[in-house]
Amino acid sequence: MSSNENNDKNIIWHDHHVCKEERSRLKEQKPCVLWFTGLSGSGKSTIANAVEAKLLQKKKHTYLLDGDNIRLGLNKGLSFSDIDRKENIRRIGEVSKLFVDAGIIVLSAFISPFKEDRERVHNLLKKGEFIEVYVDTPIEVCEKRDPKGLYQKAKKGEITNFTGVSSAYEAPSKADIHLKTDVMSVEECVDSIINYLMKKGYL
Amino acid sequence: MSSNENNDKNIIWHDHHVCKEERSRLKEQKPCVLWFTGLSGSGKSTIANAVEAKLLQKKKHTYLLDGDNIRLGLNKGLSFSDIDRKENIRRIGEVSKLFVDAGIIVLSAFISPFKEDRERVHNLLKKGEFIEVYVDTPIEVCEKRDPKGLYQKAKKGEITNFTGVSSAYEAPSKADIHLKTDVMSVEECVDSIINYLMKKGYL
Repeated sequence: MSSNENNDKNIIWHDHHVCKEERSRLKEQKPCVLWFTGLSGSGKSTIANAVEAKLLQKKKHTYLLDGDNIRLGLNKGLSFSDIDRKENIRRIGEVSKLFVDAGIIVLSAFISPFKEDRERVHNLLKKGEFIEVYVDTPIEVCEKRDPKGLYQKAKKGEITNFTGVSSAYEAPSKADIHLKTDVMSVEECVDSIINYLMKKGYL
Repeated sequence: MSSNENNDKNIIWHDHHVCKEERSRLKEQKPCVLWFTGLSGSGKSTIANAVEAKLLQKKKHTYLLDGDNIRLGLNKGLSFSDIDRKENIRRIGEVSKLFVDAGIIVLSAFISPFKEDRERVHNLLKKGEFIEVYVDTPIEVCEKRDPKGLYQKAKKGEITNFTGVSSAYEAPSKADIHLKTDVMSVEECVDSIINYLMKKGYL
């Protein structure tokens, strides 16, 4: 970043800036972040993908942030240290904010185990723009689902800092949407989120 | 980032992923990055804002990245060191790529003085997704425009690493769009960009 990068925003011949409201109006929706949090294997990505597909059917404008597009790109080079894990979630939060500013409904699917980190993202956004979705799946179910046997490896100590095994998961105490996946199907989880968005006027 | 953040993308009960083509089709446009480069005060932000307003009139879906929304957010904490300046442009490139993946036409307005950094962003994107826009304004004109007297301060040595004064500006040798603002009005610059986008099938 150059020391003069930031000055031309003040030049007097600036005129019309397109704003969040205009971008959202074009999309006929109220932008927000659906912040999925839950254990590895809890179903965050599956549910988020299904919600995105449903929103596309409704001609809504979305974007899904997950390990696939973040880990090898923007957050490449971050380690698993405490500081870097914090920075990982901070950047995802800042990018979510940019997408909300662009009028998009963002779906963010990361374990994001720590309350403090989630709270920080919440505070970046305006009232009503952050929707916490707790994908609440018993760890035994997550372990069974895990196709790579990561839980097994974690238990043997072959993987360190594994959430739920060797690192804490701080469950949300007041999630906006609480999905108990042991008694709800994926379809029911999706409906629950879509109903929430409709009831609250996002769609 | 947790060591198990990345595994659930492979779980077998994943089904439909909404893709770039679907998001773009909904928006009736071909996403791309308009990468504005030029000296401080050259008119990057002014032209980019005017292009965004014009695209909104045409019901196109855009997002503008500039000092206002990047410097105090995602790239907060980066210094003016060589490494951090590189990292600044890298992150802007990665975020641009995410927006393109979301189907958006991105306008990025940063001095971005070094060819190598711009080339790296170019290489992040698919063919045709990166459009280099050289805002070519004589430095004397930039100096006159500058309302904060930053060029004066740079000449006195009060600001260091100031592009065009104490740090190099490497002009593009083959920009996709070359705007000679000493002989073109803002309107003509905007028209030139819109015509390019139409001719090449982005709109």
